[in-house]
Formats: sequence, structure tokens, C-alpha cells
Amino acid sequence: MELSWELLNFFGIAAFAVSGALVAIKERYDLFGVYVLGLVTAFGGGIIRNVLIGLPPSMLWNQKWLIYTALIAVTVVCIFPRVWMGTGKKWLNFFDAIGLAAFSIQGALHAVNKNLPLVAVVFAAVMTGIGGGIVRDVLAGRKPLVFRKEIYALWSGLIGLVIGLGWADSGTGMVIVFILAVVLRMISFLYDWRIPGTLCPGRFRDIGS
Amino acid sequence: MELSWELLNFFGIAAFAVSGALVAIKERYDLFGVYVLGLVTAFGGGIIRNVLIGLPPSMLWNQKWLIYTALIAVTVVCIFPRVWMGTGKKWLNFFDAIGLAAFSIQGALHAVNKNLPLVAVVFAAVMTGIGGGIVRDVLAGRKPLVFRKEIYALWSGLIGLVIGLGWADSGTGMVIVFILAVVLRMISFLYDWRIPGTLCPGRFRDIGS
Amino acid sequence: MELSWELLNFFGIAAFAVSGALVAIKERYDLFGVYVLGLVTAFGGGIIRNVLIGLPPSMLWNQKWLIYTALIAVTVVCIFPRVWMGTGKKWLNFFDAIGLAAFSIQGALHAVNKNLPLVAVVFAAVMTGIGGGIVRDVLAGRKPLVFRKEIYALWSGLIGLVIGLGWADSGTGMVIVFILAVVLRMISFLYDWRIPGTLCPGRFRDIGS
Repeated sequence: MELSWELLNFFGIAAFAVSGALVAIKERYDLFGVYVLGLVTAFGGGIIRNVLIGLPPSMLWNQKWLIYTALIAVTVVCIFPRVWMGTGKKWLNFFDAIGLAAFSIQGALHAVNKNLPLVAVVFAAVMTGIGGGIVRDVLAGRKPLVFRKEIYALWSGLIGLVIGLGWADSGTGMVIVFILAVVLRMISFLYDWRIPGTLCPGRFRDIGS
Repeated sequence: MELSWELLNFFGIAAFAVSGALVAIKERYDLFGVYVLGLVTAFGGGIIRNVLIGLPPSMLWNQKWLIYTALIAVTVVCIFPRVWMGTGKKWLNFFDAIGLAAFSIQGALHAVNKNLPLVAVVFAAVMTGIGGGIVRDVLAGRKPLVFRKEIYALWSGLIGLVIGLGWADSGTGMVIVFILAVVLRMISFLYDWRIPGTLCPGRFRDIGS
Repeated sequence: MELSWELLNFFGIAAFAVSGALVAIKERYDLFGVYVLGLVTAFGGGIIRNVLIGLPPSMLWNQKWLIYTALIAVTVVCIFPRVWMGTGKKWLNFFDAIGLAAFSIQGALHAVNKNLPLVAVVFAAVMTGIGGGIVRDVLAGRKPLVFRKEIYALWSGLIGLVIGLGWADSGTGMVIVFILAVVLRMISFLYDWRIPGTLCPGRFRDIGS
């Protein structure tokens, strides 16, 4: 069981690192920028979560193998960038969904272990799942994708809610939550589901900036 | 006395959250982005201050009622966005000034309690007062407003200076500082006071980027 | 010996603060923005490094004299901005190289003292050397320069590698590393050396965003 979560971690970290590296390549950053954006996307969310729920951010360095995995994933992208821009994209989204679900569950559990209130558990799930992508976009000089496109963070938040309310305490419960989140994420990606901008949709098209 | 500060906190947090939500709506972010920018504007400054003056950032979760206040304020904006864009704007600036003053005083007191030097007290006041707005603007893909427009941070800094020098040790002193800061902020807003860009103003219009 | 490192620190902090102030002036930020960007460039990297390697970020306030140095440097820029835009620029790059080398060495040593793995030592060197510049660029609404132009971070990383591998344990070794890094940084600046964007250069010009 433990082993399988470990495996999901490796897939997820690799997918997040690849997504960061691709954004950097599209921005025509140099190799240094490509590696930094890869690492930031993979580990940024967990670091900010740790700061905010009171875990030491230096826990990062205990995950040496995950760091090497991210570095190798970025290196592969740097050698075969075309593959990832083309046919690899579909697979990337699948692995990315795995990362989103696995990291959100782990983030929520960290907050539960610290006996934090429900709002903190939801926060920890969402930040672990999407924080890295936000930092990636800021460093790429972009408006964060997760605030504008597709339903991505919502699944993170629901994972946090389910775990924070104690509805998935058993190992089996976790597995069901994980599979549901991956499936929902893939569906919302394939059908381009979006969240509205306000709670009075349609009446609000003429706002200047 | 304590109760009144608590009340000011609620007004201030709500005003900061509303300002974050409005920026997100103007950027056409989705509901997720609107809530994130609301929360970040309300709590971002205090979190960064805590990291830098050595308080646990996880103190955030002890303020559950403030978090709910921010969430409710954002929800109200999402239901009635037009109100806040229109007539509500004047009131928003007033409550925002209350937040600026109340949070700057509290930030400064946190640094004084840690026996930090004057420069840290001023920093803590300014960061608590304006840090959330800076993070909000970065996440909205904007150049931070506070670096360009109106005199906003200056009043925060003066509060830090007055408290750091021990000129406002009594409860009455605090109240005077608070009222003065709110009044100065409102005046500088209404008359659009600005800070110059360098100490040799007027001679410096031809700098390229 | 200690004294000389202290001196290098002062030169480096001043150069970093000046570079931040100049970026803010070019963005037409007001005086508040100029001081913030100056301070952030000087101290931002060290603060983020401390968070990530498990040192208290509030160590910042023990370096009061460095903070005053940065404030004075920014003030000088605000009084004589033209000097720094013109003839001062060459000198600025020289002092900046000193800062890069001195801070990278210190950052690496902090990580070594915490018995962190090699990857953390390299990270600490790079973050201390360039982190402030990244935060500066984000706050200026720019894509970070260090991801796009010139070989800058590479020398930081090499310093981290050499120190992390224990190849420069003696005082003399440190001095050699320091001088080499300054020289390499100046050469890569003068000849505009750049890092490629991927590991398959030249085959990759048609990527959209």
C-alpha cells in the first residue's frame, strides 16, 4: 500500500516538473530557467503549505529521490522537447491528474495530523495540489492558469473537504477518493468545464479594468 | 477596549477581502480565483510579517472567525458585484483605511513584543498593512499599485515609527494614532496625493526601460 | 580574514540594493517602491534560503548594519539617479559580481553547517546569489532576467557544487573560489555569454506560446 502511494508520488512529481519545464521553454527561458520552473512547479506548493500549517519547509531535503526524479524529468524534456509538446501532452495531463489527486490527499492528511480546523485542511489540500503551478506562472510572467481555465482546483478542494470531514478514514476510502478525483479531473479537462466568474453569471460582461 | 479592536479587525479584513475579490473579477478570473485573491489580500501581509519577525505563520488558523468573515465578504461581492463597483466604492475605501491603520498598529506591536529593532517594527507595520495588496497584485499579473499610486504605505510606515519609538504606549495614544492614520489615508486618497519617484524630481523624465 | 568578508558583504549588499532601486526607477515606481525593491533585492534571496534550509528568517534583523547600508545605497541612487544609469553602471556590475560570489559562498556554507545534502547546498548558494533579483523582477512586473539573459546563476551553482563537495575547505580555497567566480561573472557579462534554452539547440525555433 505504502509502496503504491510512493509510486504515485513519483509519477506526480515528474508530471508537475515536466509542466514547469514546458512553460519555461515556451517563454524561451534558458536552461537555468527551465530547471528552476520545473523544480518550483514540483515542490513549490508543498513548501508554501508547510510554512502555513507549521511544518518545517526543510522537510523538502528528506525527499532527495523525488528531487532527482524531477531533475531527470526536466532533463528528458530538455532533450526531447517536441515529444512533450506533441503526443506526450495527453499523457502529461493524465499524470498531472495523478499528481493533483495524490498531493492533495497528502496535503490534507498533513493538516489533519496537526489537528488543524477544516478550513486549514481544505487549504492544505488545494495548496499542495496547485500551489506549484501558481508560482510557476508568476515566475513565467503569466496570470496563473488555475484562476482562469478549467476546473482544476475544485477537485483539490473537494478532496480536502472529504478528508477534513473524516469521510475517508480507511485506506479503501482514500483509494476511492483518489480514483474519483483523477476521473473528475480528466473529464473536466476533456470537456473543458469551467467555473463562472461570479455568482450572478451572464449579467456582468462590461466591467473595465 | 479589546472588543473595539476586534470590531476594527472584522471591518478591515472584510474590506481587504472585498478589494482582492474585485481585482480578481476585473481580471475575469473564475470563482476560485476570486476567493483566492480575497483571502490572499486579507491574510497575505500578516503571514509574510510572521515569517520575517519569527512568529509561526500557522497562527493564521487561530483566527477562524476572521477567515469566515473574509469568505462571507467575498461571497457577498460575488452575488452583488455591481454594488461594490459603484456606490460601494467610497465605503470600501473608508473600511480599507480602517484596515490599514488597525493592521499596521497590530503588526508594529507584534514586532515590539519580540524586542526587535526599530527598522523591524516599521517593516512589520508596513508589511501587515500593505503586504496582502502586493501579493494580490502579483497574482493578478499587475504591477503592485502601492508602488505607483497614492500615499498608502507611508501612513503604515509612520505608524510603525511612532509605535517603535514608544510615542504611543498608552491606550489613548494608540487610539489617536489610529484615528490620525485613517484621516490622513482618506485625505491622501480624496486629493490623490502622490510620492515622487526620486529625490531629484522633475529632472528625470527620459529614462528608458 | 573575517573583516574582509564583512567588507565584501557591504559592497555586495550595496550593489544589490542599487540594482533593485534602478529597476524601480525605470518602472517609474514612487520612492516607496524604490526603497522596497532595493531592500528586496538585497535581502530577499537570503530570507527565502533561510526558510528552505531551516534557519530562522528573523536572522535578518541581526544584520542591522547591512540594512542601513542598503537604505543608504538606495538613498544615494534617489539623489543621483543619472550617475548610476550612466558611468556607474560598469562599476555596479563589478560590485554586483562581488555580491554574487560572496553571498553564494555564504549561502552554501549555511547549508553545509546544517548537514544538508549536496542538492541543498547548491540550492542555498544559488538562492542566496540570485533569489533577491528574482523577487525584484516579479515585483517590477518583469519576467526574471536571470532566466533569460547572461550566465549569472551558473557561477552561483558552481560555487555551491565546489563547496558542497568539500573542495574548498580551507580559507585559501574559499578565496580562490571567490576570485574565480567574480572573474567568470565579469567575463560572461562583458562577452554576453548565454545558456541555450534546451539540450537540442537550433532545432527549436517554432514553439508557440
